[in-house]
Amino acid sequence: MEVDLVIRNATVATASDILPNQDIVVKDERILCLGQGLSALFKARREIDAEGAFVTPGGIDSHVHLHQDNSPTGDTFATGTRSAIAGGTTTILAFASQERTDESLFPVVEEYHRRSAGQSYCDYGFHLILTNPTPKILQQELPVLVKDEGISSVKLYMTYQPLKLVDRQILDVMTSTRALGMTTMVHAENSDMIDWITERLEERRMTDPYYHAVSRPNIAEDEATYRVISLSELMDIPILIVHMSSKIAAAHVRKAQTRLLPIHAETCPHYLFFKSDRLRGEHFEGAKCVCSPPLREDQMDLDAMWQGLKNGTFTTFSSDHAPSKFDHPQGKKAGLVNGTTSFRKIPNGLPGLETRVPVLFSGGVLKDKISIQKFVELTSSNPAKLYGLDKKGTIAPGFDADLVIWYPSSRKMTPFALTNDMLHHDIDYTPFEGMEFENWPRWTILRGSIVWDRENGGIVGQMGYGRYLKRGRSTLSKPREVFVNEFRPY
Amino acid sequence: MEVDLVIRNATVATASDILPNQDIVVKDERILCLGQGLSALFKARREIDAEGAFVTPGGIDSHVHLHQDNSPTGDTFATGTRSAIAGGTTTILAFASQERTDESLFPVVEEYHRRSAGQSYCDYGFHLILTNPTPKILQQELPVLVKDEGISSVKLYMTYQPLKLVDRQILDVMTSTRALGMTTMVHAENSDMIDWITERLEERRMTDPYYHAVSRPNIAEDEATYRVISLSELMDIPILIVHMSSKIAAAHVRKAQTRLLPIHAETCPHYLFFKSDRLRGEHFEGAKCVCSPPLREDQMDLDAMWQGLKNGTFTTFSSDHAPSKFDHPQGKKAGLVNGTTSFRKIPNGLPGLETRVPVLFSGGVLKDKISIQKFVELTSSNPAKLYGLDKKGTIAPGFDADLVIWYPSSRKMTPFALTNDMLHHDIDYTPFEGMEFENWPRWTILRGSIVWDRENGGIVGQMGYGRYLKRGRSTLSKPREVFVNEFRPY
Amino acid sequence: MEVDLVIRNATVATASDILPNQDIVVKDERILCLGQGLSALFKARREIDAEGAFVTPGGIDSHVHLHQDNSPTGDTFATGTRSAIAGGTTTILAFASQERTDESLFPVVEEYHRRSAGQSYCDYGFHLILTNPTPKILQQELPVLVKDEGISSVKLYMTYQPLKLVDRQILDVMTSTRALGMTTMVHAENSDMIDWITERLEERRMTDPYYHAVSRPNIAEDEATYRVISLSELMDIPILIVHMSSKIAAAHVRKAQTRLLPIHAETCPHYLFFKSDRLRGEHFEGAKCVCSPPLREDQMDLDAMWQGLKNGTFTTFSSDHAPSKFDHPQGKKAGLVNGTTSFRKIPNGLPGLETRVPVLFSGGVLKDKISIQKFVELTSSNPAKLYGLDKKGTIAPGFDADLVIWYPSSRKMTPFALTNDMLHHDIDYTPFEGMEFENWPRWTILRGSIVWDRENGGIVGQMGYGRYLKRGRSTLSKPREVFVNEFRPY
Amino acid sequence: MEVDLVIRNATVATASDILPNQDIVVKDERILCLGQGLSALFKARREIDAEGAFVTPGGIDSHVHLHQDNSPTGDTFATGTRSAIAGGTTTILAFASQERTDESLFPVVEEYHRRSAGQSYCDYGFHLILTNPTPKILQQELPVLVKDEGISSVKLYMTYQPLKLVDRQILDVMTSTRALGMTTMVHAENSDMIDWITERLEERRMTDPYYHAVSRPNIAEDEATYRVISLSELMDIPILIVHMSSKIAAAHVRKAQTRLLPIHAETCPHYLFFKSDRLRGEHFEGAKCVCSPPLREDQMDLDAMWQGLKNGTFTTFSSDHAPSKFDHPQGKKAGLVNGTTSFRKIPNGLPGLETRVPVLFSGGVLKDKISIQKFVELTSSNPAKLYGLDKKGTIAPGFDADLVIWYPSSRKMTPFALTNDMLHHDIDYTPFEGMEFENWPRWTILRGSIVWDRENGGIVGQMGYGRYLKRGRSTLSKPREVFVNEFRPY
Repeated sequence: MEVDLVIRNATVATASDILPNQDIVVKDERILCLGQGLSALFKARREIDAEGAFVTPGGIDSHVHLHQDNSPTGDTFATGTRSAIAGGTTTILAFASQERTDESLFPVVEEYHRRSAGQSYCDYGFHLILTNPTPKILQQELPVLVKDEGISSVKLYMTYQPLKLVDRQILDVMTSTRALGMTTMVHAENSDMIDWITERLEERRMTDPYYHAVSRPNIAEDEATYRVISLSELMDIPILIVHMSSKIAAAHVRKAQTRLLPIHAETCPHYLFFKSDRLRGEHFEGAKCVCSPPLREDQMDLDAMWQGLKNGTFTTFSSDHAPSKFDHPQGKKAGLVNGTTSFRKIPNGLPGLETRVPVLFSGGVLKDKISIQKFVELTSSNPAKLYGLDKKGTIAPGFDADLVIWYPSSRKMTPFALTNDMLHHDIDYTPFEGMEFENWPRWTILRGSIVWDRENGGIVGQMGYGRYLKRGRSTLSKPREVFVNEFRPY
Repeated sequence: MEVDLVIRNATVATASDILPNQDIVVKDERILCLGQGLSALFKARREIDAEGAFVTPGGIDSHVHLHQDNSPTGDTFATGTRSAIAGGTTTILAFASQERTDESLFPVVEEYHRRSAGQSYCDYGFHLILTNPTPKILQQELPVLVKDEGISSVKLYMTYQPLKLVDRQILDVMTSTRALGMTTMVHAENSDMIDWITERLEERRMTDPYYHAVSRPNIAEDEATYRVISLSELMDIPILIVHMSSKIAAAHVRKAQTRLLPIHAETCPHYLFFKSDRLRGEHFEGAKCVCSPPLREDQMDLDAMWQGLKNGTFTTFSSDHAPSKFDHPQGKKAGLVNGTTSFRKIPNGLPGLETRVPVLFSGGVLKDKISIQKFVELTSSNPAKLYGLDKKGTIAPGFDADLVIWYPSSRKMTPFALTNDMLHHDIDYTPFEGMEFENWPRWTILRGSIVWDRENGGIVGQMGYGRYLKRGRSTLSKPREVFVNEFRPY
Repeated sequence: MEVDLVIRNATVATASDILPNQDIVVKDERILCLGQGLSALFKARREIDAEGAFVTPGGIDSHVHLHQDNSPTGDTFATGTRSAIAGGTTTILAFASQERTDESLFPVVEEYHRRSAGQSYCDYGFHLILTNPTPKILQQELPVLVKDEGISSVKLYMTYQPLKLVDRQILDVMTSTRALGMTTMVHAENSDMIDWITERLEERRMTDPYYHAVSRPNIAEDEATYRVISLSELMDIPILIVHMSSKIAAAHVRKAQTRLLPIHAETCPHYLFFKSDRLRGEHFEGAKCVCSPPLREDQMDLDAMWQGLKNGTFTTFSSDHAPSKFDHPQGKKAGLVNGTTSFRKIPNGLPGLETRVPVLFSGGVLKDKISIQKFVELTSSNPAKLYGLDKKGTIAPGFDADLVIWYPSSRKMTPFALTNDMLHHDIDYTPFEGMEFENWPRWTILRGSIVWDRENGGIVGQMGYGRYLKRGRSTLSKPREVFVNEFRPY
Repeated sequence: MEVDLVIRNATVATASDILPNQDIVVKDERILCLGQGLSALFKARREIDAEGAFVTPGGIDSHVHLHQDNSPTGDTFATGTRSAIAGGTTTILAFASQERTDESLFPVVEEYHRRSAGQSYCDYGFHLILTNPTPKILQQELPVLVKDEGISSVKLYMTYQPLKLVDRQILDVMTSTRALGMTTMVHAENSDMIDWITERLEERRMTDPYYHAVSRPNIAEDEATYRVISLSELMDIPILIVHMSSKIAAAHVRKAQTRLLPIHAETCPHYLFFKSDRLRGEHFEGAKCVCSPPLREDQMDLDAMWQGLKNGTFTTFSSDHAPSKFDHPQGKKAGLVNGTTSFRKIPNGLPGLETRVPVLFSGGVLKDKISIQKFVELTSSNPAKLYGLDKKGTIAPGFDADLVIWYPSSRKMTPFALTNDMLHHDIDYTPFEGMEFENWPRWTILRGSIVWDRENGGIVGQMGYGRYLKRGRSTLSKPREVFVNEFRPY
């Protein structure tokens, strides 16, 4: 049988299994079969010998900010997705972000289609950011967007003045997302605590980047996390708490999961590796690491994030790629005007789309902190399941041939220290500068096509090859029909 | 030496000790000495033989609503304090309640002085209810009220539309109360949850009194309790969470106390004895038991309140006397118009000032659920300490001679079933109707004067004998100078 | 290519994924490939159309007692494994059980080989029960048994006079199992508590079967569970706590797992479905359900077992098949002599090898209590990983073609109520008598051979086809090199 | 009236109250009355002006080892109690210690009477150490000792080969102590863990004093604490866990107390102030701080002990005075023979009887770590209540006039650094050497007699003035009649 691609001698990893000596046969963008010693049966236009290396499902980065109005110096879909494939990510979920003044979501989604169409190197979908959840939007528009656009998730903010919803609005949103089977993502920090401290800091002229971290203490995350878990329990809906960073907050999630509440959580690479001392850099360099929640002061919190990855507290591991250029008056340096600092004016967020997958492989799997199966689960399988991508997230016949081929241990890649010029985003720094990598995606394959070939051409995929993905319901959890005090709010 | 009163043969109970065979010698309103076999030394104008019975410090009810505009059919200072002394309570703390539209607290306090002056049978002080904490009030007025009026506590609401403060306002208040050493009392229920459910119930025409309880599930209390503990921890200030009713909320308090956070909590008699099925009474009788937080559905919660009394979770035991008449168009029956029910229109609150102390004695001490020392601590010593009443709360030389003399076990009082006509409030029902009592204050003594003599005249004190109490700082706890993430918000 | 078997149109379930529309191609006992629409490529001696039904990996029952001297009326390898395949189990791990007087393990293992060789319908391996862990056994014999016999697990008892080890012995065993990479299984109940209560019961002539449950309260399991977790933490070794039944004990495990201690746990079907009232049956029928730990009194415990299956507390789900005939003087009726009961003389244990897999499918997956992936993980993948069976436990090329084909939902099996005569063990009752089943293995396939064909012949496999399995190390966990108080005991 | 002693101007502290400006009138060894301005009424043979200083109840040290055979170089009753009064302790409870070979307790108690009669400077009573709890002892002797000797407490060891009881023995003892209303004290460390580690250490020649601490890790205490709480819960009896040192163990106690189990706990001065680095001293000096449980490595544990004192986890604060001389071949230096160390041979225990009360006053009350009331509760009131000393433990009419008068803050004592020659024990070192004290008992009064006058003569009491105390039942807790799984083991 004639096929498009055969990868020989792969050690296929799924979220549960390690399968040695596999041939992966690809035809018409999908995996046709997995097998052993099948070479005689298939005639392939292209063959790759994996040399026994791990082959993992293409990474799915379910938390990526591209071309949003609030970060004018960030990545576009073109530059962001270019960096994605170079780092082993074949699917991203970006945000179509409603402004407070937007009275309809339809133009918003349309606009983000305009920004992405023909621009993407990898497959992509949209989450909706809701900042003005009117009854019209919740009752009339969301059902259309679910059905026609395959948008099955929303994101809410409990903090940031221009974005935040109060509890009552969150409950209103949850009513609709529950009925529609959408996944509700939440940025959980107590807004009032942060604002109150920020004012104190400004009064005292404590405005250097470091004070951004001071202004958002763990307790703000811990409280909001507990609160939104309570709202979720009342409403009996699944949620995902994004970019968690605090030990106590993670413990709240764990306890909820023990009770089988459908609480999901996400953490990000920077919360595993960096502490808030990063914000103290000279020459305003600390601004590079300003993000929210902030990097934490105590190693205990970083350890708790690793612990949560391993013990299952975290469902997904995302980049929260939300970069701004550093040396740019609308970028990070917006917080530095005429020598005066103002951490409030520093755009929040870090770049991380390209490094996410290799960082967890090198820093997690190779350091024996997590298993390769857990790596696959966190970087690909769970995002696919949670966000309704039914052809993504594993390596099996019938699924999209989205694959990452790593370097084999037999013929190890030369370890190297990362520098920003190795990366493919359009950002002038990486927080991972100087980090040592012992492995990196050798090939990235998207729907059967090689899009990244580290040793022969690097980016070999085409802009525009990436497709918009209509998504279905989460297969990871759903309402349990269990209600507090046995009152059914529906 | 000539003295006013000697009580012989008392078994004096303090918050820590049981002292048998005591003579209590009273002179000039105060206890002059405690001793054994001192009769020869003192010539008393009045002697009482306690016959070995327990003598406990006069009850201090630190949570009493009298003559507030929002309950036109409730008790006045006259009727409320009359019932207090008949139930062994010699001091109450009532509320001077700011309306949202009040731009100054001074007229508010003045008004409550007008309502109470010359009206009170027992000693009394005021807490301030803050519903509009402007900078002027917080920064200019509170210091005056602390200093001149001896008002050392405020109460905040996290729920009820006309009263509630958002987190930011709570933080602002805490800034001032911390600086002034005031105790901050909080009604902790999540307002948005309650409003959201209430709308659902009304849509479904579930408006009978019972649905009041449904509209305020445990989780609303649990969440708000966790939140206000977090706010307190951030601000490093002592708080008291009023009228707790939920097991999980109490567990939050206990955990905070384990960590030495200065979190105090209060529960009330009705949360020990009644479940929400009380709200199902026929002929709108359920309205009699409408209060917030509501009576709980599950015995588990009631058990947790008893457990919390015994293990020390609760600092105080108060009545939350907040009554309305039942059979009155502005009373409970405001929720019943032309046969149509509306639980939202039922005034919240129960009468309980007179029954508080006997209920805990009969239902707690005599049932071996708590010790007599714990009884004293909860009903008198701790309220005195927490609210800065330095001459009240124990039986010792130099302290006010506020005493309750019980019936001795040797010569037991005949047990009786309570009926409302035995009580001295101006309310047409008691939720404790029919409850069996095995003991009751035989004499109540306020500053050396007998004001209640159960067998000879009942109320024998005079209206107006009660004095306004200027209070000092809490001696029970204060800021610890321990700060989250080591940032000092001051 | 010529192959042995093709299963078409399977919905393959692994521990992480659901793969629709698969062709499973089998050759030389193994899975050759998984694919879609491959029919043209392979010529199969046998084809099965799964009609879209779930195909799951053959069940692995890692806790089975067969032909042990201490249950003379139990199953032999022949009858036990016959029932295994009829219930979808293709591999069992039975026990080679040392007597206290055995000074060498070699004859013990030899004897169990004799009892099983040529007798087994399914593949099998041995765990060692250690009751006399002498230095010779630990240091000289275990390494040989690991290497030559592929026995990579031991089981210890903390209870039963003839079997129990004290803490010191457990530590000695752990020293060796750690060095050898063996998995240590533990029966955790506090022996002294049980003995003490048992004496009290006998003094009072409370000897009916029901008192067996009374004699072994939850707290005996809770305490021993906490203790053995502590021993494991001290020694830094992975353990599996067998047949857990108590909510608090399960909570201890969960907390340990949260901290990443390598604690595994197992529960069994009877702890999900039956309460201790089963022991109250008339005519001594209660004896049928005597097992240790006992069935629990409170539904709360049963719920906790379900919760633990779903939230990941339990690594494996085993039958603990340890049956005795009921109506036999050496069976359950040993506890009834001349009308006098003696629960101590009733042989412990229930039959359950055949029902284990269908019970969890019908009662768990089909009732939406757990996902099909969790079902696969619990009944097959995790036992394979934990006990070092590297060709078992999933459906993928290169793995043994051990498969269960279920009835498709399109063409549902007629639900039926189970009766003991439908089963294939040699026991005269089943505790699951009367339970309704909505699905049952339609075909069981062991290494490519159909051994159970429900509609055509039932048991169609041959006695002796089952092979002894040499096992390797656990791939699920290993020592962490993290030590209490940073002291390394090795 | 003529009286023996009047103390004027005292600030009396009880476990609940601070009573300023008190006159304490003493007659016939007891407090006759407390009062204000009573000078005219009493004619006293001796007057003391306390100058406003705190007067606290005489300290009760409920855990003291004197003249035991197993510490030949320790204190006798004479030297130990002499040091007691110099440190503000007026009552001690010492141990009458059964040897494994003793078949009757009567001679044991007799012997300890011999050792103490006429020797004691302070009042004293005995606990029984049970190491061989035969039925005869439990059933026939204990009732006699309770009744005739007023010995209402036993102590058990879970560790030390010559002393330890196994769980079964503990249950047997508990059966009797429950019936007799005795308090059961337990030394909770897992013996087998310790022995196993000790052997490893000896194999590696890690035998310096420091390794004593390594041999007894926290987990040994944590496990045994959980276990004995479980035994207590099963048997429904009050226990006191002695000399706790570990954070997790204390958390177990706290959780049990939350559930109202009658679990009491004790900690000691050395666990508040010293870490295990003390054991690393040169010239074998580390041996001075060898005790069991050992000093802990982590400040976290010390902090947890302070936290437990404040939050109520600990019922009592005792010295565990169990000294041996340092520079003596049968003392600490028994662990150093010919330059070879052997931590196993170092007698366990520290001196601390004299320093206990001042250390908690200076290091706790004056450092604002605990209140003066909590100080009184821990050092005097609770030991009196727990161990049935009904005339001790508070300052009130009718109670023994056992008093400590401190230096007033108005006229502060000069702070000093402690040296061993200031102390009155017969031991050649104190672990508190060099510690700064800001206060110290100025006068100690035992039953109305001044026995310690710091500024005039020091020890002014007489050997033999101390009396043997027959004790009654604990008034602090008793069985709850709540049983696990609702089975009543009695």
